[in-house]
Amino acid sequence: MAKISERGILMPASPIRKLVPYAEDAKKRGIKVYHLNIGQPDIKTPDEAFDALRNFKIKTAEYSHSAGNESYRRGLAGYYGSVGINVTYQDILVTTGGSEAIIFAMLATMNPGDEVIIPEPFYTNYNGFAVQAGVTIVPVTSSIESGFALPPISEFEKKITPKTKAVLVCNPNNPTGYLYSKSELQQLRDLVLKHDLFLFADEVYREFCYDGHEHFSVLNLDGLDNHAVLFDSVSKRYSECGTRIGALVSRNKDVIGTALKYAQARLSPPLLGQIAAEGSLKVGREYFDEVYNEYINRRNFVIQALNKIEGVFAPMPKGAFYTILQLPVEDAEDFCVWLLRDFNYKGETVMLAPAAGFYSTPGLGKNEARIAYVLNVEELSRAVVVLEEALKAYKTR
Amino acid sequence: MAKISERGILMPASPIRKLVPYAEDAKKRGIKVYHLNIGQPDIKTPDEAFDALRNFKIKTAEYSHSAGNESYRRGLAGYYGSVGINVTYQDILVTTGGSEAIIFAMLATMNPGDEVIIPEPFYTNYNGFAVQAGVTIVPVTSSIESGFALPPISEFEKKITPKTKAVLVCNPNNPTGYLYSKSELQQLRDLVLKHDLFLFADEVYREFCYDGHEHFSVLNLDGLDNHAVLFDSVSKRYSECGTRIGALVSRNKDVIGTALKYAQARLSPPLLGQIAAEGSLKVGREYFDEVYNEYINRRNFVIQALNKIEGVFAPMPKGAFYTILQLPVEDAEDFCVWLLRDFNYKGETVMLAPAAGFYSTPGLGKNEARIAYVLNVEELSRAVVVLEEALKAYKTR
Repeated sequence: MAKISERGILMPASPIRKLVPYAEDAKKRGIKVYHLNIGQPDIKTPDEAFDALRNFKIKTAEYSHSAGNESYRRGLAGYYGSVGINVTYQDILVTTGGSEAIIFAMLATMNPGDEVIIPEPFYTNYNGFAVQAGVTIVPVTSSIESGFALPPISEFEKKITPKTKAVLVCNPNNPTGYLYSKSELQQLRDLVLKHDLFLFADEVYREFCYDGHEHFSVLNLDGLDNHAVLFDSVSKRYSECGTRIGALVSRNKDVIGTALKYAQARLSPPLLGQIAAEGSLKVGREYFDEVYNEYINRRNFVIQALNKIEGVFAPMPKGAFYTILQLPVEDAEDFCVWLLRDFNYKGETVMLAPAAGFYSTPGLGKNEARIAYVLNVEELSRAVVVLEEALKAYKTR
Repeated sequence: MAKISERGILMPASPIRKLVPYAEDAKKRGIKVYHLNIGQPDIKTPDEAFDALRNFKIKTAEYSHSAGNESYRRGLAGYYGSVGINVTYQDILVTTGGSEAIIFAMLATMNPGDEVIIPEPFYTNYNGFAVQAGVTIVPVTSSIESGFALPPISEFEKKITPKTKAVLVCNPNNPTGYLYSKSELQQLRDLVLKHDLFLFADEVYREFCYDGHEHFSVLNLDGLDNHAVLFDSVSKRYSECGTRIGALVSRNKDVIGTALKYAQARLSPPLLGQIAAEGSLKVGREYFDEVYNEYINRRNFVIQALNKIEGVFAPMPKGAFYTILQLPVEDAEDFCVWLLRDFNYKGETVMLAPAAGFYSTPGLGKNEARIAYVLNVEELSRAVVVLEEALKAYKTR
């Protein structure tokens, strides 16, 4: 029998894969599961997206331009301008979700065996993209005690080898909710200029920054035009995860030109998603304000409530809609399985993402889990009660 | 300045890239260009696709399942059943276009440096996917004299090395229009079983078979359940190129399970495209009959008309909507550039795809070009007149 490849075997499965059958089984047993494990927001997609789809009259659903429809790229450049990032439509390649932007950037700038340094914990799918591109992720550990602030630059310096080609940050951060400051980003700028590396920034949570903290884009770092590469997506910005519309943005013409060759091979990003995304560009700040108010209420509620549970610590996120919880358990994965398999409180339980999957260094994050506060306050409130009862019961199980 | 990767440099650009600026310039000079160079059909997308989009009421455009919506996968299994291919929805992974199905299959079954044998001329984007996956395409040459029939199996045998992992055929074929017979496919079956290889088949033109020739799927080859992998797409079947909905279909659970890990990393195939594709499953045979009648008229007209031109030979395609032309010129690429840059007949010219780009072996196909008969008969008729006049003028230029 013809066999699958070694890299296919090495390709990591979703870190919650192990939990999914238990969650499905719990539901079959009539238990309500609060999904704090995924970043699928419950926020309404703006009407402008659906209106654009309804009003788009075409006879044939043709390929769009491989780099994306020019009208959408021009509109997107306008959006960036509105948030203080000056780029032209020619600096933008529309991609199939932010995922494809990351893969294209890796393929365009890194050879097999090359290394990218990423602060851990990090978004687990970076591992999958790295396997796909044949490159190695080198982690630099950030810690829950500092709220997952940028580790000292000296820690990055230690990890640089002749194979290092890029540093990647997710800002605001999934899974930590940390927002890198301008000063931290300037330190990274100096580092990448010193070693002639690319600075990749995954800024898909740009619109989700709290407490007056402002987002600072890598594209606004002085002197970094040839080194800064931005990954973006409408998935979270307009709650349009399913449309699969992202973007690769860089003023480095070689990066965009090379990524375009990969884009040409797959012909076109999704046409219908581009129509929805272009329509969404019409939403005013009031849409973001409404979403902001919803998330800040959720965050303020859930972080305070979680920190009141004995033995639980959750740093206050400055952005995105995640936080990493420190739990009074030895093995968070075992606890997460137990929550679904063996526990319920008044017919309800909670699904969390064990944090070890977000760390590259073995052994780290074992007593941590990520939550996404993508449910409304009432449901979050129930979920926190369930979690508190679960921790009591788990201790005496 | 941080530099792009060597594999980024090696990544092939679109074979018509060189021609595009000349075509744009010709249009600026007011010249009408008949595009016979691309496989973007002018056929209407079925109303069922747009109706499904209009009628789909959702609040949030969420991620679909990474393997695709179960309802669509079940519907697609029903479509395969209707054309005599028996698979379950669990044998199907919905992909972002047929392109992603090919990349996932390469990543799941081949390691970097492994080899896939493909009869040439072949669809040029296979080159891009191979660079992306780090695998090598080994060509076996088919010839215009035989209408691009399957080369003798002995030619394949000669190319097999310990690194060979798969044979890939496109059936019906882009760029040749050839339809592999059941007997040819059985020879390939015996070959892949003997050497324990995968047999990949790109069957996106399945519905386009002419003159009573029936399409035979690799999934219907006896004893090949663990070796046969099908690439499919709704792009051509329903003229939905822009929706980016394809499929990877195999009864080999390891292939589907491994591809699913890559699918999970990119989260989800396009939601809106899946809705359109699922709606399209409702079209009756009359849709295909109408499309069939249109294409067979085009084919019969254009092949006959082309063969009447002195020095031109075009084999009669049995499927898809392409043919390779032999032209009375030394260098078809030079001729194609000249057509756009230096020629017009009554204000009109023709854009063809030079065929050398479809061959892997250097020097082959130099006097050949591919045409796609994706225009109506009236326009094709004008295009052939223009081509005939052009060949006369080119000879005496």
